[in-house]
Amino acid sequence: MRYMKIDHIAIAVNDVEESAKTYQEALGINNVEFETVETEGVKVAIIHLENGRIELMQPTNENSPIKKFLEKKGQGLHHMALETDNIDGEVSRMENCGIQFLGKIRPGSAGTKVTFIHPKSLDGVLAELCSHPK
Amino acid sequence: MRYMKIDHIAIAVNDVEESAKTYQEALGINNVEFETVETEGVKVAIIHLENGRIELMQPTNENSPIKKFLEKKGQGLHHMALETDNIDGEVSRMENCGIQFLGKIRPGSAGTKVTFIHPKSLDGVLAELCSHPK
Repeated sequence: MRYMKIDHIAIAVNDVEESAKTYQEALGINNVEFETVETEGVKVAIIHLENGRIELMQPTNENSPIKKFLEKKGQGLHHMALETDNIDGEVSRMENCGIQFLGKIRPGSAGTKVTFIHPKSLDGVLAELCSHPK
Repeated sequence: MRYMKIDHIAIAVNDVEESAKTYQEALGINNVEFETVETEGVKVAIIHLENGRIELMQPTNENSPIKKFLEKKGQGLHHMALETDNIDGEVSRMENCGIQFLGKIRPGSAGTKVTFIHPKSLDGVLAELCSHPK
């Protein structure tokens, strides 16, 4: 059956190790993993909640989009990620509705497929669309 | 058992009816409700996903914090809401960790209890903490 879930909430931070400690203590959660995604220019702390994740993202180089976001807006909410069971079908459906994307569907971390909906198609919100491996 | 879940993602918009149409079409979701919370100065469109909600918020008066947010930052991600089974216990635990709150625990919509964690305690992120009635 078709579904759409909240996969994660992504937050831009200056220092992912420090922020992970802050979040772990505040939320009382020990289940945290770190991952560096060089192709996206980010180091990520993944905080596992019952039904999704909070991802803290620190830029790893000067060209990282997260670096530019931090310079312009400072630390804070960066994007929301929605999970679908059929990313190819959803992107086709959305393109037929006039939704614009930032790049094609591409491999993400851990076998996922991801793309991003342009903020101008969602009233200022950057949204990742992702599918997990079956 | 103690848990912490993503309850909803809240987005500030200029016109909640128009934005609800945009999101419904983009996400292919028909399950949307509207609610006005006069005490918070917002009209909300609640979009139900499999495991949580997207809430679009439009200010209903000049003093609404959402009005100020829109004037300063424009439309976009406003806060994340985390659900706990024990909001009183979590707030006590967090206060002992030095977390600061915006106001006391208070009644929200539909029998919920809510409070907000100050963004300075979560690296720039405004977070709602909520409990649903049992």
